[in-house]
Formats: sequence, structure tokens, C-alpha cells
Amino acid sequence: MDMAYDAPVSDIEFALNAFARIGRLQGLPGHEAYDPDLVRPILEEAAKLARDVLAPLNPVGDAHGAVLKDGGVVAPPGFGDAYKAFVEGGWMGLAAPEEWGGQGLPKALALGVMEMFHGANMAFGLCPMLSYGAVEALLAHGTDVQRAAYLPKLVSGEWTGTMNLTEPQAGSDVGALKTKAEPCEDGSYSITGQKIYITWGDHDMAENIIHLVLARLPDAPAGSKGISLFLVPKFILDADGTPGERNGVRCIGLEKKMGIHGSPTCVMEYSGAKGWLIGEENRGLACMFTMMNSARLNVGLEGVAVGEAAFQTAFAYAQERKQGAAAGVTGPAPILHHADVRRTLTTMRAKVAAARAICYACGVAADLAHSSPDPDVRAAAKTREDLLTPIAKAWSTDIGVEVASLGVQVHGGMGFMNETLAAQLYRDARIAPIYEGTNGIQAIDLVGRKLSGTKGASMQAMIVEVEETVRQARATNDPQLVQIADRLKAGAAALSEASEWMVKTLADEPEKGLAGATEYLALAGDVIGGHFLALGAIAARSGQDMDQRARQLALAGFFAETSLASAPGRVPAITEGGARFLEGSKALFGV
Amino acid sequence: MDMAYDAPVSDIEFALNAFARIGRLQGLPGHEAYDPDLVRPILEEAAKLARDVLAPLNPVGDAHGAVLKDGGVVAPPGFGDAYKAFVEGGWMGLAAPEEWGGQGLPKALALGVMEMFHGANMAFGLCPMLSYGAVEALLAHGTDVQRAAYLPKLVSGEWTGTMNLTEPQAGSDVGALKTKAEPCEDGSYSITGQKIYITWGDHDMAENIIHLVLARLPDAPAGSKGISLFLVPKFILDADGTPGERNGVRCIGLEKKMGIHGSPTCVMEYSGAKGWLIGEENRGLACMFTMMNSARLNVGLEGVAVGEAAFQTAFAYAQERKQGAAAGVTGPAPILHHADVRRTLTTMRAKVAAARAICYACGVAADLAHSSPDPDVRAAAKTREDLLTPIAKAWSTDIGVEVASLGVQVHGGMGFMNETLAAQLYRDARIAPIYEGTNGIQAIDLVGRKLSGTKGASMQAMIVEVEETVRQARATNDPQLVQIADRLKAGAAALSEASEWMVKTLADEPEKGLAGATEYLALAGDVIGGHFLALGAIAARSGQDMDQRARQLALAGFFAETSLASAPGRVPAITEGGARFLEGSKALFGV
Repeated sequence: MDMAYDAPVSDIEFALNAFARIGRLQGLPGHEAYDPDLVRPILEEAAKLARDVLAPLNPVGDAHGAVLKDGGVVAPPGFGDAYKAFVEGGWMGLAAPEEWGGQGLPKALALGVMEMFHGANMAFGLCPMLSYGAVEALLAHGTDVQRAAYLPKLVSGEWTGTMNLTEPQAGSDVGALKTKAEPCEDGSYSITGQKIYITWGDHDMAENIIHLVLARLPDAPAGSKGISLFLVPKFILDADGTPGERNGVRCIGLEKKMGIHGSPTCVMEYSGAKGWLIGEENRGLACMFTMMNSARLNVGLEGVAVGEAAFQTAFAYAQERKQGAAAGVTGPAPILHHADVRRTLTTMRAKVAAARAICYACGVAADLAHSSPDPDVRAAAKTREDLLTPIAKAWSTDIGVEVASLGVQVHGGMGFMNETLAAQLYRDARIAPIYEGTNGIQAIDLVGRKLSGTKGASMQAMIVEVEETVRQARATNDPQLVQIADRLKAGAAALSEASEWMVKTLADEPEKGLAGATEYLALAGDVIGGHFLALGAIAARSGQDMDQRARQLALAGFFAETSLASAPGRVPAITEGGARFLEGSKALFGV
Repeated sequence: MDMAYDAPVSDIEFALNAFARIGRLQGLPGHEAYDPDLVRPILEEAAKLARDVLAPLNPVGDAHGAVLKDGGVVAPPGFGDAYKAFVEGGWMGLAAPEEWGGQGLPKALALGVMEMFHGANMAFGLCPMLSYGAVEALLAHGTDVQRAAYLPKLVSGEWTGTMNLTEPQAGSDVGALKTKAEPCEDGSYSITGQKIYITWGDHDMAENIIHLVLARLPDAPAGSKGISLFLVPKFILDADGTPGERNGVRCIGLEKKMGIHGSPTCVMEYSGAKGWLIGEENRGLACMFTMMNSARLNVGLEGVAVGEAAFQTAFAYAQERKQGAAAGVTGPAPILHHADVRRTLTTMRAKVAAARAICYACGVAADLAHSSPDPDVRAAAKTREDLLTPIAKAWSTDIGVEVASLGVQVHGGMGFMNETLAAQLYRDARIAPIYEGTNGIQAIDLVGRKLSGTKGASMQAMIVEVEETVRQARATNDPQLVQIADRLKAGAAALSEASEWMVKTLADEPEKGLAGATEYLALAGDVIGGHFLALGAIAARSGQDMDQRARQLALAGFFAETSLASAPGRVPAITEGGARFLEGSKALFGV
């Protein structure tokens, strides 16, 4: 029997406070509702929904999946009621402006809630995640009329949202899309084309679905500069704003996937569907990036969430499954007592903690970038958000897959059985490195726009903070923290060296630089993750909670001796590996 | 459309020659039939069966699975005919003694053939793999009567074999098993109990199935010293040696697994089944290890095989899928032209090549340990086989999972679809680190029996060879090989340091040593894998095949700058990581 997911409320709270320093948002415009004392109760309330409602439905969604029936998608059993509970709890509007019915709380806090929902049931969590994206796009680019018409219902969760980018020939290369938008006389557009891989593209849990669709105007320039964003409701709104006539968009197929069976992945057909332009003509990609950036961070969080769930179920299994003898235990010992199993669990826990820290730090940076009255703070926070977003997305989701795989391993043969949660998580986790921009795309974004685009300054600012953490750790004179500081210092130097090389090489020999992008991102994640864990150990030291103190020190110490200690030796994989492989590429692949 | 698996005949041949030096077997007793000129034709013939018969059935097995019907297991459609072709080709007896109808060829060559069958269809390959184990156990421990009765049919493949170890409470801890064996008056035993996770425990492809079953005699000592091995045929042989009366053993359930659906994983019920003792009473574990060691190497090879298949399908997809622009390509470019994709493929290829080298080196060592007339050579080869077996099993299967996951990534969204071969391989690959002794058990075996059991001499002998490779590489004066030599030298030093630490620490603080076992195995695999790839680059240099030369240099060079370059920085994960985690264990896990 798998243990139910029990949301790590304390860990999330600790991450928000010690790693991401959410307290910085207090009193900022737009965050008037934020009160540090509310964080814990909000997280605890969300944890109940996650544990009691969403987690029990996770295996149900996996076994049943969503079904396409009579032209519409039927969500798995129980999902509709769970969604109702989600809406009634007001969870959708947590971070939305009060003006539109939201609660005006920090996005970073909403991330904490979303982590729990993803951890309990990732297939379910995807539905609100996509709705968030639609809300963000409308807030940033919608007209007043559009906002008034759609935001209140999206913010309440009564309607859900989708993102429609991909077409069979246009995946990572969004610019290749062919869906057409023809202007109509009434100012609307007629949308025609096929979109694939549309998450929660159709379902029966909400009374309307608001599709945000990338399409091309008749005279649009080729490529990504000719793409516009349209809003296409499943039901066109009547004059009084209620869903009326069925629009010309429908789900014509569901993908048979390896995981997240509970989440319908739709092939959507637009046949002259009525749509309205969001933002300017041919500027759709910029609008889409508003949704994408938020979605990327949320997908990173899925890595954290699934990793946490994998850790929990493996830890529970290790306490219950008895095999072999261990010192101090009479009779067969729980496998938790075997050093190798416990070390595996430590690896899982430390990596998840580091990924969580990066995601929440990115979330608070996004809030600050939006809300700080000081333009310098806003600019610095935006740079930080931009830098951390691809790392949060790629590094965390790679860890999600790795940790889910370790979770299977802890379960032994049982982990290979489909009904085991560990097996489901291994399958579910695998999508996250792929969607919302593959992790390879994230790495290219990191070394290109984010690193080279700031001439290295974005990472340099991060490294300065890492070095400050080194100083703080040394100043404690705690021998364990001093050892962590030494590892972190060496890691920072490695990241600094790799960053300099990357900026220079991307300018001189772009192919060679790009060949090292994924390794560079991995190194950056390790060093920044180690920095946060060290910060956590320092912060816990000044607290009263001795368990927390020991725990944070254990995680930071372990991470330092494993991921950080190996950082310097991984620089050649970036600076030399790429060259080696480009030289050999012809011999290996003919190109 | 997935590309069909095309067996890497040249790579396997190269691995047998350059890495494993199979030529050393020529002229040895028991290998009279071995002729180096036969290797290529045999591999090519097997490649046809793999490509034309087994590979097309791989998705069939995945989609249909095996079915339990009317008290018996029905293999997936087409598997029975494929098995017939396998038997008719004489593949089962390739490495069996001619005395029993085999061809007396080296086991290492049979490994090459098995790699292809696993790569084409791992679920299918498991059936002969288990039969090999039964053959080995009978050869080593059977009486003359038993051999005469069972070996000819097992060697021909007309009958298949199984291994029955696991029970619900007895997985890694085999000593906890409860199946009973009561002596009968006719010298046979009556076997009663339930076994789980029995691969190909029942099926309709062969006319008899020979179960090798671990059970406990009534007065047996507790634990693993009270286990005996029994042979239990599905059909008891008549006086004339043909299968007659149905024995009291049957499959009562099939596991629903994440992968290898084509291979039935059976719950077997023994209710007073007639069995015969193999070897001595209470010495069953030793007999079982004869099968286990061969099975472990074969499972390691599954990692290689699935990794190769994952590489092939990803490479094919990367040539065909077009996204984005690339220099020198008009219109959308195949994603193979993007540096990040090509680098991912390089990683896959290099790791698979290194794992293949380790497996074949282990196989030739096993042959030498058996056949060399020189007792010193035999002893050294046995030590090498013992050392490499856990590395071949664990390192290769971890790579199988990693490479299969990278293969999914190269496919993008398509890789997450169940019908894609990449997705199947990701699910199939996941079992290999678990069965035949989890990879954690392998790591404990490596640092315990294999390393400390020889006071470190086994690894020291290996490191001496690595250092010889360093010298050879330097002597070429080829700047690329000299750079590889430098990386290899540093890797050897790291492995040497870690080995010394491990032997000492296991003696003084066993828990601390064991906590570093898995990391130690990973380091050993990287250094030994790098050593073989360097050897390959040196060997290819003296050959006439310029493509091969460039390819081997590319793989060795890439592996050196990535896996080898990071080796020294990973020593702390062994020597410090364990200590760190043991200190923090209480805080993290309460034990």
C-alpha cells in the first residue's frame, strides 16, 4: 500500500523564507494582502486538499485516463469533484489581483500551493497551471474589455485556460506553425488549423475553456515574426457574458502517453473558430512568452513536486519493507537501515531541496521584478528571474526524472509494477524535461539570451551572492559549514570559469558553445543549488528548531561533498567536451 | 515510424577483438571450434534474426503482453514462431559444450549474439537468458544422469529454463525464503511454496520448462545456509526421457509491469511438485550463484542492448525530424544538425560503447577462467571476471536507463507517446538495475567480496592495466591520445585512492564504507570504461579503417573530457559523502 502524499509544508515554508526570502515582498504595492503570518495557514489548508482529495485520485487518473466520448473529453472519475473543491477553495486566484477577484498574494506563495497539487496529482495540477498562463497573458496583453470579460471567471477557476502552440511540423520551432487567422468584419478572426499536444484542451470540469492560440494572419511575415495570439473560447460569450454558442473548435483525438494519463493531451481542430486578437498583430510570440515563462517555472516545480512524492513513497517503503539484518534491529530489518538505501534517500532529498530552493527563488524574483517600487531592484530581480527560469525548468525536471528513477530502485521489484506509485511517478516525471521548451532549448536560452545577452553580468551577479554565502558560512567557524564553504567556493570558481568561456566562445564559435550548453546548465544548477542549501544551513543555525538545524546541515553537507565537490572536474565537459564532439561528429554522425 | 533495430555487428566485433581480446581463446581446450574468421559470419547471421524476426515483434509484445489463460501462459502473438526460428538457428547452444549438442564456442561470442537479441526485443531475449542459467547450473552442479536427461533439450532450446528465487518476503535477502522441500522415498523431493517475479515461468513456446528452485529442507539451518537447489520440470520425464505427467507447479498470476510486457513475470505455485536435488543439500546458494553470475553479466548486457536500441532510434529520429534552421541546410534542418542534439547522441553512443567493452571483457575473462591450461592465467581471469561482473551488471544497466531517457528526450513530445519505441525502451530498461540483484547489492558485492575480499588486489591489477594503457596512449605522440592519457591517468589515481580508502574503511567502519559503495562502483565503471575506450582508439589507430579510427578517437576523446575528467572530483562523494550522510542520517530519517 502506497503512502498518501503528505505535503512538505515545513520544507516549503522554509524554502520560501530562508532560500527565497519572500519577506522582501511585505508592504510592496500589489502585495498589500501579504502577511507573513498567513503563509503557514494557507500552506496547511492547501496541504489538506492535496492529501485528502488530490492524492487519492492520482492512481485513479493513471488507471482510467481521460476519455474522448461523443465529441468531448471526460475527465477521469473524481476529477470533476476535485476540481470543484479546488475552485471553491479559491485556490485559482491566490496570486491574481484583487481587482479581478483574486487574493493579491505573491506568486511565490501560489507556487508553494501548486507544488503540493502537482506532488499529489501532477495530471490534475496541469489544468490550473495552464489557466494561470492564460490569466497572465490577459493581465499583460489583454484589452480592458477582454480582461473584464474573461479574467473574473478564469481567476475564480470556473473557466479554465489552455496554450495552443504546437503543430505536427512546429514543435521547438514555433515559427513553423501554419494555423491561419483571417480577419472578420466584426473585428474578430476566423481561426483554422490543427494543434497537437494541447494539455487539458477539452474536458468536462468547467463550463468554458479559454484557448490561447498562436496563428498566422494572411499577410504575415514568415517565421516567428508573423505569429499572432488569439483568444478562442470553447463557448462564445453571449451579450451578457455567459457562455453561449459552441465555437468551431473541438478535440479530435487524445494521445496515448507513457504517463500523466489523468491529463487529456488533445489534438485540437480549429475550423473557422471565432477568435480575438490578444496584443498586437504579429507580436504573438512575445505575448506567448508571458505565459511560457510562468509555465516554465511551474514545470520546474513539477520536477520538485514529483521528486518529493517519489522521495516520500520510497521513504515510506524503506521503513516498511524488511530484508536482511542490521545492527540494533532484531529479526529482518527495514531496508532503511541499510546504508546504501539510506544514502539513496539522502540523494533524493538533497536534490529535491536544492531544486525547490531554485524554483522559489525564481518565483520571488518574479514577484519583486513586478512589484518593487525601486527600478534598480526591479531590474535586478528581472535579470535574476530571467537567469533562474531556464535553470529552474531544466535542472529541476532532470532531477525529477532522476529522483523518480531512484524511487523505483528503492522499491526493488515492486517499483517495476504499474500499480506502484513509484512506477507512475517515473512515467509521469518524464514529460517535464520535454514540454514548455525541451531542456535543450532551456540550455540554449540560458547560455544565449540570459548569459551572453547580459555579457555574463546576470551570472556574475549570482556568483557574487554565492561568494557572500561562502563568507557567511566561514564566519560561523562551524567546521562543517567551513567545509561546505570550501566546496562552494570551488564550485563558484568553476561556474565563473565556465561562464567566461561560454560568453567568449558563443561569440567566436557558436556551435562549440552550444555543444556545451546542457552541461553548463547542469553545472549552474549544482552550484546555485549548493549555494541555497548552504544558505539554508546558515539560516537554520540561528533558529530554535534543532531538528531543522541538523537536517539543513545534513542536506547542505551531503550536497557539498557530492554535487559541489564534482563541479570543478566538470568544467572540461563544457569547454573541451564540445570541441571533442564537434571534431568527432563527422565520424560519428556524418554531419 | 520507428527504425527497425539494426544490430551493430561491427561495434560488437570490435569490442570482442579490441577491448576483450577474444583472440586469446584461440586453441584453448574447450574452444577447439573457435575460429576468429567465424566471428563475423556468426554475428551477421544472428543480426538477421534480430532485425527481421525479433525487432518487429518488440512493439507487439509491448502492446499485447503475455496472457494467463486456462491455467497456462500464452506468449504474445508471433513470439512462438520467433522462438522456433531461434531454436532452428541453433542459437541456444552456441557456447554450450559439443558433448551436449552445443557448438563449443566462447561464451563471449554468445554474449555478442545475446546483445542483439536483447537489443531487438529484450522481453524475448529473457527467455533464452534464463535457459542459459539453467544450462550453466547443470553443467557445474548436475549429476551425470541429470545432465544426460536435461542438457540436450535445454541446449537445443526445445526446453527452456527458469530461476526461482524470490518470494514475497525474500527478495534481496534470499535466505528468508520459506518454500519447503520434503524428501520422498524415491530420492526425489516434494516442493511446496510460492515464488514471485519468475521470468518466463510459464509459456507455450517450448514443450517443457525446467525450473530451478531454491527451497528449504525440513531440518535445514536458518538463513542462507539452509537453502538447497532443486530441478522441477513442468512435465515430469517419462522413462524414455520425454515429457509426461504434468508436475504440481503452475503459474497462478502475471504481474502488471511498467515494461517488458512481452515477457511473462509469473507468480508460481508449487504444490507438492516433484523435484530433484541439484548439488549438495544446503548448498543451493552456491549453485544458484553459478546461474546468477552468468545472469548478472547478461543483464548488464541488456543495459548495453537497450541503450544501443535507444541510440539507434534517436539517431534515426534526429535525421528525419526537421525543426529550425542550421548552417548549410536549406529550409528546416534535421535536428541532428543542432549541436545540443548531436551532443546528446554522442553521450549515448560513448556510454554504450564503454559499457559494451566492460561486458565483453568480463565475458572473455569468464571464458579464460574456465579454459586456460595455465592455472595462474585461470586464477587471474577468475579474479577479473569476479571484479567486472558487478560493474558490468550495475554500471551498464544504469547507463541503459540513462541512455533510454536521453533517447526519449531526443524524440521530444513524440518520445512520451506509448507507441514510440523510445518510450518502450525507457520503460523496459528500468527493470535491469533491479533484477538479478539490485545495483545496490552489486555495489556491496563489489566493495565487499570482490575488492576487500582480495585486499584490494583485484582492482589493483585492473589499475595496472589502466596505467599500461596510459603509457601506450602517450607513446603514440598523437596529441589527442596524449590528452586522453592525461585524463585516464588522473582517473586511475582517483580510483586507486578511492579503492584504498574503501578497503581500509570497510574494515574499520563498515557502515561508512557501504554508504559509499554505489558511488565507488560508478567511479570504477567510468575509469575502466574510459580505459577500454582509450584502448579502442589505440587499436583502431593501427588498423586500415580510417572511419573506425576517427570514430574510436571521437568516442574515447569525448568520454575522457566528460566522464574521466570528472572522476577525481567524485572521490569526496565516496570518502566524505558517506560520512556526511551518516552524521545527518538521524536528522533526516530517524535512524
